[in-house]
This record gives sequence, structure tokens and C-alpha cells, in this order.
Amino acid sequence: MKISVLQNILAANNQIATQTRLTLAEHLIPAINLISSPGAGKTAILERTLEALQGKTACGIIEGDIATTLDSERLSRFGFPIVQINTEPFGGDCHLSASAIQQALTQLPLNQIQLLFIENVGNLVCPAEFDIGETAKVIVLSLPEGEDKPLKYPLAFREAKVCLLNKMDLQGPLKTNINRILDHIRRVNPNLPVLQISAATGEGLEAWLSWLTKIST
Amino acid sequence: MKISVLQNILAANNQIATQTRLTLAEHLIPAINLISSPGAGKTAILERTLEALQGKTACGIIEGDIATTLDSERLSRFGFPIVQINTEPFGGDCHLSASAIQQALTQLPLNQIQLLFIENVGNLVCPAEFDIGETAKVIVLSLPEGEDKPLKYPLAFREAKVCLLNKMDLQGPLKTNINRILDHIRRVNPNLPVLQISAATGEGLEAWLSWLTKIST
Repeated sequence: MKISVLQNILAANNQIATQTRLTLAEHLIPAINLISSPGAGKTAILERTLEALQGKTACGIIEGDIATTLDSERLSRFGFPIVQINTEPFGGDCHLSASAIQQALTQLPLNQIQLLFIENVGNLVCPAEFDIGETAKVIVLSLPEGEDKPLKYPLAFREAKVCLLNKMDLQGPLKTNINRILDHIRRVNPNLPVLQISAATGEGLEAWLSWLTKIST
Repeated sequence: MKISVLQNILAANNQIATQTRLTLAEHLIPAINLISSPGAGKTAILERTLEALQGKTACGIIEGDIATTLDSERLSRFGFPIVQINTEPFGGDCHLSASAIQQALTQLPLNQIQLLFIENVGNLVCPAEFDIGETAKVIVLSLPEGEDKPLKYPLAFREAKVCLLNKMDLQGPLKTNINRILDHIRRVNPNLPVLQISAATGEGLEAWLSWLTKIST
């Protein structure tokens, strides 16, 4: 019973996601869907990314949060158009849905956007299950979350096109075994590229920017 | 449409949770429902807690994960009965449901248990929405997640009876402003007690153990 209900919701979602994918393709806009646990650094990575792309690439941003406009406020200084989605009125939805994105796109000047960033709700589970019409899901994993997370939350790592391993600057204090994390990622998705970065220090961001350039062309 | 479906699911869940609450009350077992983002330290806190309670309090543990038995394996050395729930067969469920707990309880020797710990799936959103028959929800927030999380994920902080602020040992490297976190917690739940702890160093655990003693009597 519950499963068939979920299948209906997913089918309706996927239909709208397909429409969104067509709309974005018409406007030649790649859409990056950033997924992670709360506090893994999605917004900090976006701050670094938008700063680097200012004056070079016309970006658009859709910010997903259950509540508050804190993240939009942090990103507004770069002057790119931003739409904030708060899922709280929808019962505190734990992920962005295709229909929320479809609504948000009507508020963005699509003719003037070359690259769209979508920051999903902080959640390592549900956002991975929903197609929102993106070009690529990007999974952000941060060192303090622990080495076992790819094994325990495999879907997000299977669905992603690239993994950003963030907060590399904390490797010392945390004594993180990076090889173990890489091994765990390979076990759930052997082909997933992993970029080791730190949004705090800027380490490794060139690789991420060049990945974005590749997916944009 | 979707909302009424969700209400039906929640109503069915709450009915089972009420049955569980009666069962636990008959056996005089307080049940602690641990909720947090992935990697905030729920399992590490449980390791410290079970170590301290060995030989004093007969504990039982229900471990919730989408996949793997990694956490059960970590906790098995303390000799307490453990049931691992993997939600992956249920579509990768992002939270423990009342019926999953009801099933798990049939696998535990309730007559020999004085205190039940339930480690929910790592997710700061959905587990807060589901009553599973617990005595108290406990929210674990770790410093690396950032100071804004209580505002962005308010429900978990509203539903909890106590907040464990974990990874205090990282305050130095992260330059975390603890007062700002405490202020943000107070804004969503002015009466929530906050215990500053570190599962890594053992700091602050006496306060947590004495909170457990209070709720157990």
C-alpha cells in the first residue's frame, strides 16, 4: 500500500523532472544538484565557486531549505539571481521536488543564465531519491562525518556524477584515514571521481572548477 | 492529495507508537530515540554510554541504518542485546517507523532490559516527524555542522527533550562560537537543556549520564 503510494509520487515527480530537463536543455543551462548532510559545506563551496565565476559565467541559484533565508543571504553578495525555496509550508519536506524546482525556474531569467546551481535540503538520504531535472547530482561529504558514510548511505554516492570530499583542512585534528574513505566510495560506486577540497582554505577548488567547465560544454 | 496521504501514514504510525509506548511502560523501560545528521556522533556517544553503564544498568539497543551492520558491530562488544534494522528493503527509508520498532521489540528480551537506546537513521529532518513510542527524543548536534543548524532544521530541536552538543574537542580548530549556537537553539526551543560533550575525549559525559538516570526513574 505505502509502496504503491510512493511509486505514484515518484512517477509524478519524474514526469515534471523530464519537463524541467527539456526546458533547461532549450536554454543550454547545465544544472548542478548539490546534495549532502547538514553542515557538510554546500553553501561554503558555493560561496567559493560563485566568487571564482563572477564576471566569467552567468550563474543562477536555487536554494533549498526547510526554513530561513540564511543561505540566500550568504550568497546574495555575488549579484547572481537567487530563488529561495522553503519546504516548511509543505510539511517540512526533506528534499527538493521536481515541482518545487519547476516553480522556482519561473522566477529566474533563464535567457541570461549559463549555469544553474541547486542547493538541496541538507539530507544524505531523501534528495538522492528524487530526480529534479538536474544535469548532475554532486555529493559533498565532509571529513567530520566519518569514514563509513558511503557504505551507510550508498544511494547518494551511486547517483552522483562527482564527489567533493570537503573539510580536508580538518584531516590533522580528526586523524581521518582518507584511503579508507576512498575505498568505501569505490565499493558503492567504483567510477565516481572524488575531488579533495576545503571550502575553508580554498584547497582543491581548481579541480572542481575545471569539472564544472567540462560539464558546461 | 499528497498531504492527505501523508496524514494517513502518520496516523497509522502514531497508533503503533502508542501501542509500543504501552508495551514499554508495562516493562518499565524508558526508550531514548537518538536523532542527528549523519556523522554527528550518535554511535560514538552510545559507545561511551554503554561502557559507563556496563554492570550497572541492563541496556537494550535498536540500531537503525539504511544499510550495513557497522554500528551494531561497534556496539556488540558491550554484551547488551542489539537488534539492527536496515531500512534499505523498505525503499531506503530515511527514518525509523513505529512499525519497524514494534518488530524489533519482538526480538529483544524485554523482561531483562532496564533502558532502551534507539539509534535512528542519520537524518536531521524525517526522524523528528515520526513518533516511534520513545520516552524522549535526544538531538545530537556536532560543532562541524555549523552554528545555523537549529534555525534551519527547527523541528528536531523542538521535539527533543535534551540536546547533546558533541565534538566540543573541535571547538579550537573550528573556531566555533558556542554562544551563537546556544542562542539559535533557544530561539527554536527556549527550554531545551543543552549538554556540551565530546564522545572523543569523554568531556561532559557525566551530565549526560545523570540526565539518563533522571529520565529512568
